[in-house]
Amino acid sequence: MQVTSEQRLDDGVIERAFLLGEVPGILWTPPPASASAPAPLILLGHPPLGLGTMYPRLAQRARHAAADGFAAATIELPGSGDRPRWPALEQARAELRRAMQAGRPVDDDIVDALVLPLVEKSVPEWRAALDALLSLPEIGGPVGYSGGVISIGIRLALVEPRIKAAVLFAGSLVPAALVEEARRVTVPLHVLLQWDDEGNDRQAALDLFDAFGSEEKTLHANMGGHTGVPQFEGDAAAGFFARHLKS
Amino acid sequence: MQVTSEQRLDDGVIERAFLLGEVPGILWTPPPASASAPAPLILLGHPPLGLGTMYPRLAQRARHAAADGFAAATIELPGSGDRPRWPALEQARAELRRAMQAGRPVDDDIVDALVLPLVEKSVPEWRAALDALLSLPEIGGPVGYSGGVISIGIRLALVEPRIKAAVLFAGSLVPAALVEEARRVTVPLHVLLQWDDEGNDRQAALDLFDAFGSEEKTLHANMGGHTGVPQFEGDAAAGFFARHLKS
Repeated sequence: MQVTSEQRLDDGVIERAFLLGEVPGILWTPPPASASAPAPLILLGHPPLGLGTMYPRLAQRARHAAADGFAAATIELPGSGDRPRWPALEQARAELRRAMQAGRPVDDDIVDALVLPLVEKSVPEWRAALDALLSLPEIGGPVGYSGGVISIGIRLALVEPRIKAAVLFAGSLVPAALVEEARRVTVPLHVLLQWDDEGNDRQAALDLFDAFGSEEKTLHANMGGHTGVPQFEGDAAAGFFARHLKS
Repeated sequence: MQVTSEQRLDDGVIERAFLLGEVPGILWTPPPASASAPAPLILLGHPPLGLGTMYPRLAQRARHAAADGFAAATIELPGSGDRPRWPALEQARAELRRAMQAGRPVDDDIVDALVLPLVEKSVPEWRAALDALLSLPEIGGPVGYSGGVISIGIRLALVEPRIKAAVLFAGSLVPAALVEEARRVTVPLHVLLQWDDEGNDRQAALDLFDAFGSEEKTLHANMGGHTGVPQFEGDAAAGFFARHLKS
């Protein structure tokens, strides 16, 4: 893991850009003076729009986490941002867009073509990032996952034992294979659902919530569209991680 | 309003039993030393099992509210506890029990017969209690409603302008007329749903949440049955009331 830049934000949070092989990422750690022992880590998931585009929202979530004593980190998804283009993914995305613009139901083949390769390629990268991040002296376990591309969250929660709790954004573009994997997820979950999300089928999202195997799972549904998650849900997610990642 | 007993609980909360005409009730107020100015009030709704039976859970909710600076109050429902028996209500309840024990769907007539008279009779009593409680110097507005018999909560939220926010326990035994009233409710809502509630139809509860007209409404769904609401939801409800009842 090669740190390519480091800066101290106005609230004292340390932000480091890094490269892990060819995968760019960002790490935020609480102000050194405030940190007690190694900080637990929250991985910040995000939609495949590129870290540059996502930076403002990611940094806001990271600062909130740091204020609660967590380190936070994210990596670029394959085919996004400055990473090499991924024509197959772009084609699947274009097909999805055409179907949605035409008001057609999005068929399973499109969802599979869009999501499965992203899960297959990115999950090992997130796990490699975990290896590198947890080797830093200021970061300890346990680890939480928070964020979008719920299919990546499902796979990570299932295969990565260091992840002890997850905050997921409910989506409906989830391949059937991942819904089946969701049944075997057992870590505590906190699922956010935007009730009027224009890009998601509400019933499919509720069915996915129902499918999760976790004994402790909570659904928070709020009014409004995809990007309208209310401010107070940040505090609720923080409370969830505090309950599960701090002892 | 006639105070029939008063005691100071171990956390300093003052608990007063009262009679309002023939309706018994309980009022909890924060420790006098801690209270700043008149405290906002939360009305504690509850199922028609009698205040005696419900006391432990109500007192716990009231102490939580008092710790956050709220007064809390409840009154006995008609036909419950020490109030005169109400044969028509008992008959409707027996019919409901028979239908549920036989695994039959509960038909609309039974729900109407059970719930509508309870709403018609109790809502004016809650409003009269509000008049009396808000005349006490230690209690001010605004007012929240929190609790069960969701149909009573719907009617109160619709007709009582002093109620500015409500925490409701999602139920499915809601008369069609009350679902229609829910569409006209506009105060901020925080709705709790037990995902595996044996006494409730989940889809009907989700449909009711969808029906509410409120611009701000949040659904919190948790695993488990009717009485299994997790401890941390008490904090979430407190946060909701703090946002809406304190300025």
